[in-house]
Amino acid sequence: MSDNRVLPDGTIRSLCGVSGVRCAGTKEGKFGLALIEAPGESAAVFTRNVAKAAPILLMQERIKRGRLEAILVNSGCANALTGRRGQADAMSMAEIAAEKLSCSPDAVGVASTGVIGRYLDLPRIEKQCSLIAPRLSRSPAAESDTAAAIMTTDTYPKHALVKGEQFSIGGICKGSGMIAPNMGTMLAFLYTDAAIPACDLKDMLSHAVTRSFNQVVVDGDTSTNDVCFLTATGSAGRVDNHEFEKVLLECCTLLAKQIAADGEGASRMIEVIVTNAGTETDAREVAKTIVGSPLVKSAIYGQDPNWGRIIAAAGRAGVSFDPDAISCWIGAGQDRAPVCIAGTMTEDLRAAKQALDAKQVVIELDLQEGEEKATAWGCDLTEEYVVINGKYTT
Amino acid sequence: MSDNRVLPDGTIRSLCGVSGVRCAGTKEGKFGLALIEAPGESAAVFTRNVAKAAPILLMQERIKRGRLEAILVNSGCANALTGRRGQADAMSMAEIAAEKLSCSPDAVGVASTGVIGRYLDLPRIEKQCSLIAPRLSRSPAAESDTAAAIMTTDTYPKHALVKGEQFSIGGICKGSGMIAPNMGTMLAFLYTDAAIPACDLKDMLSHAVTRSFNQVVVDGDTSTNDVCFLTATGSAGRVDNHEFEKVLLECCTLLAKQIAADGEGASRMIEVIVTNAGTETDAREVAKTIVGSPLVKSAIYGQDPNWGRIIAAAGRAGVSFDPDAISCWIGAGQDRAPVCIAGTMTEDLRAAKQALDAKQVVIELDLQEGEEKATAWGCDLTEEYVVINGKYTT
Repeated sequence: MSDNRVLPDGTIRSLCGVSGVRCAGTKEGKFGLALIEAPGESAAVFTRNVAKAAPILLMQERIKRGRLEAILVNSGCANALTGRRGQADAMSMAEIAAEKLSCSPDAVGVASTGVIGRYLDLPRIEKQCSLIAPRLSRSPAAESDTAAAIMTTDTYPKHALVKGEQFSIGGICKGSGMIAPNMGTMLAFLYTDAAIPACDLKDMLSHAVTRSFNQVVVDGDTSTNDVCFLTATGSAGRVDNHEFEKVLLECCTLLAKQIAADGEGASRMIEVIVTNAGTETDAREVAKTIVGSPLVKSAIYGQDPNWGRIIAAAGRAGVSFDPDAISCWIGAGQDRAPVCIAGTMTEDLRAAKQALDAKQVVIELDLQEGEEKATAWGCDLTEEYVVINGKYTT
Repeated sequence: MSDNRVLPDGTIRSLCGVSGVRCAGTKEGKFGLALIEAPGESAAVFTRNVAKAAPILLMQERIKRGRLEAILVNSGCANALTGRRGQADAMSMAEIAAEKLSCSPDAVGVASTGVIGRYLDLPRIEKQCSLIAPRLSRSPAAESDTAAAIMTTDTYPKHALVKGEQFSIGGICKGSGMIAPNMGTMLAFLYTDAAIPACDLKDMLSHAVTRSFNQVVVDGDTSTNDVCFLTATGSAGRVDNHEFEKVLLECCTLLAKQIAADGEGASRMIEVIVTNAGTETDAREVAKTIVGSPLVKSAIYGQDPNWGRIIAAAGRAGVSFDPDAISCWIGAGQDRAPVCIAGTMTEDLRAAKQALDAKQVVIELDLQEGEEKATAWGCDLTEEYVVINGKYTT
């Protein structure tokens, strides 16, 4: 995968790699605020959790206009399960940004992340917005502030920039816990200079999110606040839709893998590749079920090549296959070690154990049911996940 | 719930509370063997994992006869993902017991639990069976040996005995990790002296298992080896079916709660009661999703009244409800503390935090969608779960 975000001098570029995007961010303790200004055709996908946060409910309506001028994001409070007051607060957030930018509140996207069941601190948001609005700029420093402002339990900011022939797609995201399938995505903000109408953006975004963010599992808990925005500023003109889809998927995948690697308490990233499935959906389900299994995750943390857990997880994915026909490897490429070939177990698991001694562990499972393929990403389960989540609100 | 298993002198009775049942067990390190002799009409429910262990595949066929003479169970090796050799080994297990008991191998139930992807050590099973077959008896000591023989990561043996007007139902089970919904159950062996035909037993067992064992979630991983057997020895004669169903559910629930409380690494048992759901299935799904949420489990371990995670988990259960109408309490009975009433959050969570300082934590969620109700059981998520599962095979 080509990752153009790091320049030779080490500078990270994501948002600032896309013309027409300016941003700024600030953080006080766990309360951050980020403002991204980028007028253009826009689309979004949202969490499928029934208990949707106030900003999600608001944006589901407002995104139908197909155009955003800017997005305001706060961290530290999710504004979820806050009822009517939460709804009013989400609208106030949009108004705060609209006033600074002299645009319509309807054209401001809002998103929140943090503790559920708390009201927004609007005076703080107002104050922080006044601070950062004058600082809006297109620079690596500004995007670094912006990506840091939306972090909660994330341990590093997440950027991606992928270039097509004539255009770029760049974005930032956050996500570390409450990460699971069956969602829109975590908080992700994507920008491109390609000129693409909102209706096409929506379809292409859904396609890419299904195969990237939605294939990440940290703990199986789907957030109330997940959202992924995509805005096309249009300065690069019309582009080939097929090429755009490819570059978009690559950009989303780069971000998704950063979320997986930064899973709460993670010491290792896990990539599960399922091949020769009957359908692509089958392949995705099996890959996600394996990468989300607490027993598989614990075994990888302990560097234990307990491959029976991999097959047991596959077996509960709701997908039909013949356990006596499958093959499974641990490790990548030339160095992959077989643990089971055509249903027959490998007696000597030393090579498999060796393959687990990596920061990125690859598991490959051949279902021998068809020709479809999918990948999912996650992380190991460590004591630290429990520590982080045992005392989050306090 | 009436639990008749503990006598005034502290003696535990389960299997030996049912006439017609004799048992014996032994354990060498992690390799145990249990033999239960109880001729009678029999039924069983099995794991729904696609990757079914060899003894499961064998018993799915043999249980169709509707009658068992005995059951032989080994621990330490699951005989799962072992292909044709595993199938032959499961049949050999049945033959070993049949020879000792002078019955047909077709009438011997077999079950296995332990590491997946290992072959059975048949010479050891033969040797252990020769040791315990002459010791078969109906006594608290024998049932204690039997329940201990089937344990893996369990920290205590699990017994239940519930009496009806004229009959008893007693049983033992094991289960601590790889415990999840969508299964037959863990290993459970139930006996009654009531006279009930196998076809009725099957229906009544399915009904009870759906509402008891299948409502237990430890880690969301469904085993390849789950099975629950029920044998009716018949010496108490015909009984009222309705009463029998009630007593059976009570007996299964007593065992299910013991499994939840003994979840790997658990420090607290969690009971989730969902009320006023649209359908019983909805209530069950929501209860199971909450009790299985890693974030809810971690919060309870940390005594953190982070109720937003409870509602967020409910919201991803695939069940429709209005988040603005729900109420939620932590704690049981008179002492339950509200955290959210009719969609409005409780600002002071001190009482809720206090309610989390218990060995058995109760969470109640009123969905305001209908009149149906269900309960699920689980445990908190501690660092110890990760430690136990990080190095299981080694």
